[in-house]
Order: sequence, then C-alpha cells, then structure tokens
Amino acid sequence: MQAAPLYETLASSIRHLIDSGTIKPGERMVSLREVSQRRSVSLSTAVQAYRMLEAQGLIEARPQSGYFVRRELWAMRKSATGAKSLRPNLKPSKPVSVDVNSLVMELLTAPSSPDVFALGSASPGPELFPGAAINRILGQIIRRRPHDFERYRSGPGSDDLRRELGRRSLDWGLSLGYEEFVITNGSMEALNLAVRAVAKAGDVVAVETPTYFGFLQILESLGLKALHIPCDPQTGLDVGALEAVLERKQGAPRVAALLCCPNISNPTGATMPDEAKARLARLAAKHQLPVIEDDIYGDLYFGARRPKALRAWDTEGWVMLCGSFTKILSPGLRVGWIAGGRFHERIRLLKYTSSISTTVLPQLALAEYLQRGPFDKHLRTLRRTLATNAAQARAIIIRNFPEGTQISQPQGGFVLWLELPKPCDALELYKVARAENISIAPGTLFSAAGECRRNLRVAYGIRLTPAYEKALARVGELARQQMPRVAPPTRGLAVGR
Amino acid sequence: MQAAPLYETLASSIRHLIDSGTIKPGERMVSLREVSQRRSVSLSTAVQAYRMLEAQGLIEARPQSGYFVRRELWAMRKSATGAKSLRPNLKPSKPVSVDVNSLVMELLTAPSSPDVFALGSASPGPELFPGAAINRILGQIIRRRPHDFERYRSGPGSDDLRRELGRRSLDWGLSLGYEEFVITNGSMEALNLAVRAVAKAGDVVAVETPTYFGFLQILESLGLKALHIPCDPQTGLDVGALEAVLERKQGAPRVAALLCCPNISNPTGATMPDEAKARLARLAAKHQLPVIEDDIYGDLYFGARRPKALRAWDTEGWVMLCGSFTKILSPGLRVGWIAGGRFHERIRLLKYTSSISTTVLPQLALAEYLQRGPFDKHLRTLRRTLATNAAQARAIIIRNFPEGTQISQPQGGFVLWLELPKPCDALELYKVARAENISIAPGTLFSAAGECRRNLRVAYGIRLTPAYEKALARVGELARQQMPRVAPPTRGLAVGR
Repeated sequence: MQAAPLYETLASSIRHLIDSGTIKPGERMVSLREVSQRRSVSLSTAVQAYRMLEAQGLIEARPQSGYFVRRELWAMRKSATGAKSLRPNLKPSKPVSVDVNSLVMELLTAPSSPDVFALGSASPGPELFPGAAINRILGQIIRRRPHDFERYRSGPGSDDLRRELGRRSLDWGLSLGYEEFVITNGSMEALNLAVRAVAKAGDVVAVETPTYFGFLQILESLGLKALHIPCDPQTGLDVGALEAVLERKQGAPRVAALLCCPNISNPTGATMPDEAKARLARLAAKHQLPVIEDDIYGDLYFGARRPKALRAWDTEGWVMLCGSFTKILSPGLRVGWIAGGRFHERIRLLKYTSSISTTVLPQLALAEYLQRGPFDKHLRTLRRTLATNAAQARAIIIRNFPEGTQISQPQGGFVLWLELPKPCDALELYKVARAENISIAPGTLFSAAGECRRNLRVAYGIRLTPAYEKALARVGELARQQMPRVAPPTRGLAVGR
Repeated sequence: MQAAPLYETLASSIRHLIDSGTIKPGERMVSLREVSQRRSVSLSTAVQAYRMLEAQGLIEARPQSGYFVRRELWAMRKSATGAKSLRPNLKPSKPVSVDVNSLVMELLTAPSSPDVFALGSASPGPELFPGAAINRILGQIIRRRPHDFERYRSGPGSDDLRRELGRRSLDWGLSLGYEEFVITNGSMEALNLAVRAVAKAGDVVAVETPTYFGFLQILESLGLKALHIPCDPQTGLDVGALEAVLERKQGAPRVAALLCCPNISNPTGATMPDEAKARLARLAAKHQLPVIEDDIYGDLYFGARRPKALRAWDTEGWVMLCGSFTKILSPGLRVGWIAGGRFHERIRLLKYTSSISTTVLPQLALAEYLQRGPFDKHLRTLRRTLATNAAQARAIIIRNFPEGTQISQPQGGFVLWLELPKPCDALELYKVARAENISIAPGTLFSAAGECRRNLRVAYGIRLTPAYEKALARVGELARQQMPRVAPPTRGLAVGR
C-alpha cells in the first residue's frame, strides 16, 4: 500500500471545500503562498495541487488574478448539492420480477458497427491501460513458462495472483489470505456465484436503485425478485431503509441477500461513508444477511484515499467481496475474483460446476504485472485522467443539455448519471441518438421497477476527443428538442388576431 | 474434412473382425500378401495397417510365423463381447436428487501434491498436444494484433473461431453457420448454459448411467433431479428405455431435458450407432424434448471415421451441441462452444448474464491454429497414440487386476471403465490407493443412484511411462487384496486335525 502524494491529499481536501459549497463558483481561491503557509506544505506542492484541481475542471487560472472556482460549476453545484433532485423518489419497493434482459441485449449486444459512438457503455477504452506492458509479460510467460498454463487445471485459480490480491487487500482495509480468493471469469461470474451461493429461484434480493443493470440481469436469469432500496447519489445505499425491510416492517418480505456496490456505485458514482458501511455490516451480522459487495470501481476514487471495502467492517464473513481487473488494468483478459467469506467453500464448488476453472495464462500475466508494476503509478494516472474527463464531460453537458438537467457528482469511476427535465424521455432519446450512430444508456435499464425514465448514463472512460464532445453535444441537442418550444414572442402577424 | 488414410480404414475393418470375435485370440492372421490381394491394396498399405493393429495391442508378430491375434485379448474379449456384464443392471430409475458434489470435490479438487499419480483424472497430458505451435501463434497475436484482444468485448465470441467451427462441423455431419455458435469458458460452461436454458430447479433431467460426474454436478448445483437411462457400454443410450419414459409409462415423470454423450461416452467409451441417433432425434422432435449433446470426445474415435453428431439427425433444432478444445487441442486455454439450435438466443443471453464473454486471446490463437494447422494431422497422431495407450493399459490391467475384472472396449477417448469382481469395493480401493499417492476415479462418482460400487475409471491420456505401469499394476494388486484368500491346499500340518 502506497500513501497518496501530499499534493493529492491537499487537492482532495480543497476539492471538498468546493464540493460542499464552502468556496463558491466564481470565488477567488486563496493564493498559492497562503495555501503553502496555512497547510505547512511547500510552494511546489501547493502548485501541484492547484494544477490537479485545474485539470479536474474545478478551478481556473485568470491572468494576473490568480485562481478562481469555475463559474460553470454553479450549474453542477445545483445538481451536486441538490442531491434529492437526483434521487428517484422511491421507497423500498415491493419485490418485482425483473425484466430488463431483452432491453439490455438489444441495447448492448446488438451487432454494432465501429461507426457507432458508444457514450453509454461503461467499457473503458484500452488506451487508458498499460496494455503494452501486460502484453510483454504475456509474451515472456508464453516463451519461458509454458508448462505453467498449458496443462488442464481445476481449482480456485493461480496462487501467484491470489497472493497479489491478498497483498492488495491491505488497500481495501483488509488482510485477506490467498486461500480466501477464487479467481473467476470476470466479476460477472463472481457475482453469479455469490448470488447462487445464497439464493434460489423465487427468493427476493435487495438491490440499490438505481443499480447496475448487470445485477438485474443476474436476478432475472436466476428467477429471483428484486427489492429496490433507495440510494442517495452521494452517500449510496439508505441503510435505514434496508433495516426497516429486514425488520419486516409493513409486511416486508424475507430478503435472501443484498447485492450492492458500496464504493462508487454504478450508475450514480455514490460511495457510502465509513459510518454507513459499519452500520450495514452490523445489520448484516444481526440479521444473518448475506451481502454481495461489488467493488470493481473502488480503486478509481477521486478523493484523497481509497474507500475501504464494506467487508472491512464484516467480522463474521457475511460479505462476499467481488472484484475484477476489467475496469482497472485489463479490459480484455476477463479476470475477476471473489472472497466469499463464510460462503467460500460453496462458491469454490459452484465455480467448479460452472466452468471448472479460469484460464491460467491471463492470471499469470496479471500476477506478474502486480508484482513488477508499476500498478500504483498506473492507477494514479488513470484516476487523474478520469477525474479530468469527468469535469470535461460535465462541462460539455452543462453547455449543451436542456436547462434543468441534473448531473451526478461521482466520487470516482467513469460514468455520469443525468436526469433530464420534464417532459424528456431517455428511451426516446436513446432511439433518436441511435439513429444517428450515437449510443447512450437510458435510465430504465437501471431499475427493475421501471423508474428512471428521464435518466441516462454517460461514460467518460475513454480519450475525450473532439468526436466525443461532438457526439455528447449532439445528444444534448436531441434532448433539447424534446423540450416544449417556447412560443416566439408575438409580432407582426399576430396583430389583429 | 480429410479422408482417413487407406491403411487406417483397412486396419479399422480388420479390427472389427477381431472385436466381433470373427478372428479369435490366438488365431493366425491372414498373410500380408493375402490381405493385399483380397482388399486390392498395396502391400505397403497392408503392412501399415498391421503395424497399426500391432501398435494398438491387438495383434503380434511371431518370428517366422506371421501375425497372430494376441492371446491376452481373450480376457478382454470376455468383457468386450460380454457387454451385459459391464452394464449396471438398472432400469430407468426414479428421479433422484443428486449428491455427488462433496465426493467429487474431495476426490478431484483436494490439494494434490505433484507426487500423486492421477490415474483417474480424464485430464489429458500436455505432451499429447501441439502446445509449442499454439504458443507460437499466441506470441504472434500478442505482438501483431494486440488491438484484437485488449478491448472489452461482449457477445458470442470471436467470429474467426466460430467460422472455423462452422467449417469443422462438416466433419460432424453438419454444416453450421458461424452465427449459430456461442464460445464458452470450456464445455462445462456450455453444458451449464444449455441446462439452464431449458430446465429450472426441481425439474427432472434424463442422463445416461453411468455418466460423467460433471453432468451430475451440474444437476446438483442447479437443484435438478436425475433420471437414469440405461446405457450399453458399446452402443450407448438405450433409446427404447428413454422412449418409455417419454411416453410416461408406469408413472414416469415429465422430463425437461436429456443430457447425453452419444459419441465416446464418458466413462464407458460407448458410441451410439447411426440408427440409434436417428431414432433419438425423431423421439426428441416428437416429444419436443431438448437434448444436450456433449461431443467433446467425438474427434478421438478409434474407428475408420468420425462418428456423426446426434445433431446431424436433428431437423428441428432440439439438440444443443456442446464441444471443447480441452480434450483435443489445448487443455489449458479453456475454450468451449455451444450451437444451441432453437435455444440459441436464450443461451446467448445466459452467456452474457453469466460471464459477459469469453477471453478473446485464446480464441484467436485456436482460430489461427485451425486455419494454419496441421490440426487434422495432430488429431490422427493423437488418435493413434490413444489407441495404442488403450491397448497397453488394458494389457496392464489384464496382467495385474483380479480374475473376473471386466474392461470396457472404448470406441475412442482416453478412459477405460472397469468392473471389479465381487466382493471388491472401488471406493475402498480409492482410499487405499490414495494413501499410496495413486488417485483413481471410483464408480460411485458416475451415478447419482449410488450404483457402480465395483466400477472404476482409469485414464490413459498421458505418456504411458514405467511409472504409469507401476501405479496401475499397484492398483490391481490392491484390488486383488480385496478378494477373499483361497485357503492354501492342506498339507502336513492339517493332518489329524
């Protein structure tokens, strides 16, 4: 585990002042010298911190005048601090059968031409990842250690890779042994194994709302019902609402498991504060509730330090922690993992009966990359790029989308969650944009209860080229066309009528 | 599709004469010259055919006297032609809940030291496969086409590989389009997807008996019940017995699907004759019965030509054909496939919700190897090695196992199925052998109904070293120790007592 550089910590704490509205859009920032004195850091650290905030689109330098909080943030502020407006007005729902598969498959796996600009997909661009370094390692393993991957193997996965995961788990607030992990075919398999370990067809599984549509697809394919728990776009899952359900208030059904993303939830980018995680872990232990924690975005935080895994507060093994390298290191190799806690043996068996084992070659390459690095450096660069992209994407949205559009303030990751003003319809927007070869993810994908009709998810996990800006601006324009036209001021012709 | 060399066809037809007892153990073979004249082939073709039969352990040359059918075959004959004795005496069972997982996991996935000699595992040895050629291709793809595998992809798999499968399907008696395939993480995932596409918890699935324990594990993990259909060790599934079940005679339950291995079934090595496949396909269509066909051993036939897939007789898409490269080309890369017929779309969706997609890099390497070969040559060599190994392994068994041991006559593949004489107990044998670092697969693994207690499976898909012979001979010795000791003839001391 490597401590964040000082300037990042400094930038993050200043960012907090901006986020919370303590320093307002348009206001002048304190001078670099003053920062240096008040925070007891060198001037160059202060400069680096301001440059980082500038790169993130939060502040701007004005010649001869110093740094200012960007005025455009005002529009963002409204959405970021007016969190309620972004929260779908949902109480814990009744359990609903899930029926998102057909829509998702139509949207995401339809044969897509390379001409389609995929704004909605949360697939990060390969240009953000150290592909060349990993490929070099792959080549070396193939030449030097073919006996290590050619043979048929069953079992939970490469010991080398599991040891590296054990070491990395310190960053998650844990210290897991290598034998606590099972390597999977991406996190999707990990989530499937976890759900199957604790729930059977007809059972009710609690999920956040809005939530990753993959969660909903898993529930649908296994014949499970979804119970939506409200989720704040900043602080994530409403633990109180979950507690009421677990205490079976107002005829709430028995919940077989909770499937959630406490760190940088998809699509909102919310991260649960430590106290909420602690409370959730206590609740799980009290009610013997299996919790499936998807932590695939945890390393992509924009704050000062990595948010801990919910599992860090779990003393009794109720939390099954799932992760993947897909979003942080290698989109193509499809290697994920699960540390199943008290369900580990059951998961190991289900992995065997589902796909025997995971291809070894990619595991060996990732293990070597983690050993030889520079993984931490890569992650820092990636986070910086994503933070900058987030600010740029928001700026494009503010300039081009209808007035009243709300934008999430993600705490990391690479997606924004928007809510369009009435009477916009995101599914319609999807259709007209798709006709122009631009693909977005409409909000209805993210709720089994059929909510989120005015929401959409926009990804920024690629290089933000002029073509990106053009495509996103065009979506904004198409959204504006859904707004009622204000009648032009009457003149000339109207006289006498 | 490449025709078999003439000498292979010739050897195969002669083999049939031996197998059927037309030429008996100990009998002299007709001379090479006579074969050449009667079959209108060159003398060198006749020589090659006899050498192949010799390599397979069926005939032997005696100096100055010509070729003879090996006497040791007499013992094998008894088992091979006395097929009934090898058939578990089972009528179609009542549906039974499956409970093999814990035993399988104990046997097959327990931490095993490299010192353990794995006689029971059907994992082929890497020395039988063109690992070097595939690794060269892997290296080339990594250097030259990184953009083809680095990116995150969803969807049914590499078009290149699916096109190659389409071409190969001619060998299976089919002509499948590339879009009919979904690439999976080995055939285990393919089988899971197929079962999940047509059956839900509580349903009854018909399986052969004895059957591959992986089938039983899938059923157990999905909460399905198994209905055992008798299976002849030569001709496979008893279609008449299945028909009686489908016609709901004697209160037979509704069957949601049939899971079977028509070509070179595991563990018996049985292959269904064409007529039986045709009848089964008609039956499936009549009763709208989804059939999951596992064809992973089809290319490893010992006969003159590849047995066709059951799917070749399926005109209405009821047969989901599953296969893999694990047993024929690359044990380590874990690439399988499924051609789901009328269930294709459902399977495509289940693949997506289970693991999104299969790692692309191994797919590209296999596709290139199939294009550039020499795949057919490799398969011929592999089949020849396996046929020779089968004969050698049988000879070791005949020399070392208790009198009365029955041995299967596999039609291909790399396992033998034994039935020990009473009162042997294969599970006990497993335990004592395991204590000596030799691992076998006891028969109880292969039946959910708890049958096959005197059976075991022995694999020969590795290089048959002296260590192999020693291990297998030792298992025979341990089995002999399970037999009641015949009291030595009374002499001396017994007088007067």
